[in-house]
Amino acid sequence: MAKNLQISVLLDFYGDMLTEKQREILEGYYNDDLSLGEIAEEREITRQGVRDAIKRAELQLTEMEERLGLAKRFWKVQENLTLICDCALQIRELSGGESPEINQNVEAIIEAARELVE
Amino acid sequence: MAKNLQISVLLDFYGDMLTEKQREILEGYYNDDLSLGEIAEEREITRQGVRDAIKRAELQLTEMEERLGLAKRFWKVQENLTLICDCALQIRELSGGESPEINQNVEAIIEAARELVE
Repeated sequence: MAKNLQISVLLDFYGDMLTEKQREILEGYYNDDLSLGEIAEEREITRQGVRDAIKRAELQLTEMEERLGLAKRFWKVQENLTLICDCALQIRELSGGESPEINQNVEAIIEAARELVE
Repeated sequence: MAKNLQISVLLDFYGDMLTEKQREILEGYYNDDLSLGEIAEEREITRQGVRDAIKRAELQLTEMEERLGLAKRFWKVQENLTLICDCALQIRELSGGESPEINQNVEAIIEAARELVE
């Protein structure tokens, strides 16, 4: 079973919508890099049981992303915020700090953008 | 039963996670301003049945917001984007269009911010 790295991202967004058991198994597998065998031993279930639980939870996460699109939207926001920061830094350089008013606005833009970057 | 206007916002975010029936009833009540009686007649169920369905769906939406916090996060993003736009417009005015490079960066900031405003 190949690990789907996208799942780790979806787990961040939608993990709170899973049951505690599902979340723990997926976190073990994706975030703590445990093997199916290790998880099976820890939880006293079969390897196949772990595999099935992971597949079911992965399907739920993927369906939630198809419905809500949180991860997709998140990446678009992060991309534009990075661009906004870069442009603000360029303005700071171009204006050479001559105008305190421009500087103030540049700093406010950078602060507002960084507050949203995760 | 007082209408909870916050629900209309949550319906935008999490509506796709409800069943079709739940979503339709809530949209009728909150977005199309139908009365309990009108919805009951349309769906051939009792007024009490409509009331219960609305209460259940409202609870689900509220719980999803408690878990995922989409709406709260959305408003914070919108607030900061408005601030970013305002500051960029101020810089445009302050720099008086003298520097084409500053202008370019200002326009890029405004475009990136507006792309995210909904």
